[in-house]
Amino acid sequence: MNNLDLSSEREITARAINSFAHTHDARLRFLLQTLVGHLHQFASEVELSEAEWLQAIQFLTATGQKCDDVVRQEFILLSDVLGLSMLVDAIEHRSGVEATQSTVFGPFYIAGMPERKYAENMALIPGSASLITGYVRDAAGNPLPGAILDVWQTAENGQYSGQDVAQPHGNLRGRYRTDEQGRYAIRSVVPVSYPIPTDGPVGDLLQASGRHPWRPAHLHFMLDAPGHRRLVTHLFNDDDPYIDSDAVFGVKDSLRVVYEPRFASDPLAEQFDIGTDFHIATFDFVLEATA
Amino acid sequence: MNNLDLSSEREITARAINSFAHTHDARLRFLLQTLVGHLHQFASEVELSEAEWLQAIQFLTATGQKCDDVVRQEFILLSDVLGLSMLVDAIEHRSGVEATQSTVFGPFYIAGMPERKYAENMALIPGSASLITGYVRDAAGNPLPGAILDVWQTAENGQYSGQDVAQPHGNLRGRYRTDEQGRYAIRSVVPVSYPIPTDGPVGDLLQASGRHPWRPAHLHFMLDAPGHRRLVTHLFNDDDPYIDSDAVFGVKDSLRVVYEPRFASDPLAEQFDIGTDFHIATFDFVLEATA
Repeated sequence: MNNLDLSSEREITARAINSFAHTHDARLRFLLQTLVGHLHQFASEVELSEAEWLQAIQFLTATGQKCDDVVRQEFILLSDVLGLSMLVDAIEHRSGVEATQSTVFGPFYIAGMPERKYAENMALIPGSASLITGYVRDAAGNPLPGAILDVWQTAENGQYSGQDVAQPHGNLRGRYRTDEQGRYAIRSVVPVSYPIPTDGPVGDLLQASGRHPWRPAHLHFMLDAPGHRRLVTHLFNDDDPYIDSDAVFGVKDSLRVVYEPRFASDPLAEQFDIGTDFHIATFDFVLEATA
Repeated sequence: MNNLDLSSEREITARAINSFAHTHDARLRFLLQTLVGHLHQFASEVELSEAEWLQAIQFLTATGQKCDDVVRQEFILLSDVLGLSMLVDAIEHRSGVEATQSTVFGPFYIAGMPERKYAENMALIPGSASLITGYVRDAAGNPLPGAILDVWQTAENGQYSGQDVAQPHGNLRGRYRTDEQGRYAIRSVVPVSYPIPTDGPVGDLLQASGRHPWRPAHLHFMLDAPGHRRLVTHLFNDDDPYIDSDAVFGVKDSLRVVYEPRFASDPLAEQFDIGTDFHIATFDFVLEATA
């Protein structure tokens, strides 16, 4: 009737790892056995109490139940604020290829958004006008005509359409294409910094840890071109106050862009029919060829 | 424009751990920083791909969404089949005190079940009759009158009331008390082995890993007595075919009991008004005094 001692804890861990020994798929077996090892090592190292375990169970349950089928994915948000999303991104892009850097996908992408013409305005409600333009090229510098740029950003209230049901369908979202010269142009509004949603378990976690929930202003991109690897990235506003403390660790220096002010009288305003003062940012994307 | 190298992966991990440095509660800070360290170490060690990460996100989301407010707690089930629940139980009971061993709580407990008289039958539908009886004592061997035994088990179809809505309220559940001599007696049916629920993500996990979902037959107990530490445990049927391969790693040798057959003519059958052939199991519980 002796209670378990430390060697029995090791015995439990060994049995749990061994229980996955007959997993047919070798990769899954490796993932599960390594995961169980780390999970048990964590619990033993911190001497996890039953009360803490139950809090974790409740936290994970609430995180799953906060997810919906539309735009709220609280587990991606959790992965983001724990730095796991950026770590997986880094692992996925270990190759030293000279291509534009990737960053976190985020939980707010919606597939199937409207196709947009060159320089079409994706801002369906008024705001501080912006123009983002540049080339999409391959690693050798050749322009890539017909590349698709799937783009999304928040409105000036810090919310994405879909998340904020008051915004029209497709607001500040859309799929652009490069022209025959490999150029793209996006009419929109200047991105603003915004807090990630704090009305769920992830918000509670940030609050308990004294962390702010803000992300520096950014524009999301998912780029596709035949024969090239998909690129998921952001362009960050260089002068944002949160540029050095992104709640999800997404900033890379190479992805910072300056929005320069231009008057309504600027030739570009005429060319793109902007009609007001605006800001312009330029960025050339480089895509990695698939093997 | 170089992509991140391994040293940058370490940089991401360091920044994620450091982001929790201002957590006010020191214990929470320790838990979170250690957790993030292990989580990142796992991802780096297995070189977790984005596709695998997304599968994990979807698995965890489905696990949370499979939980309901009544009796289904898929995250506890997940913790159980990963051996984490038993590990936490072992950590919680590291003291070498001579008390009855604990085991996993399981996801099927319901609070507030009916109070039962001494030897009252908690089986509200017919089955193979059983009697479980013995003493509840302190570590010095003194009987503990008025100790509460909160008991639950599955019906012969392998399902708990609450989980199986066809069963009457409180079927095979109830709260017994020891008498003035510290004895308890429970009329019920002989427990059967049963599979844990396999219609959710945890079932998918077991199937993918070639693991069976069965638990050896058992009766759940939660014991409380003033001045003593709560005991959560099972009594397992000694002869169960799954006694050495419990899907949740819950079996301890000291918790195995033999159900002995008795005829309806046995004096005990008369004393407890059983009226049929039955099986009897005896077990004395020992509770640890609170400090």
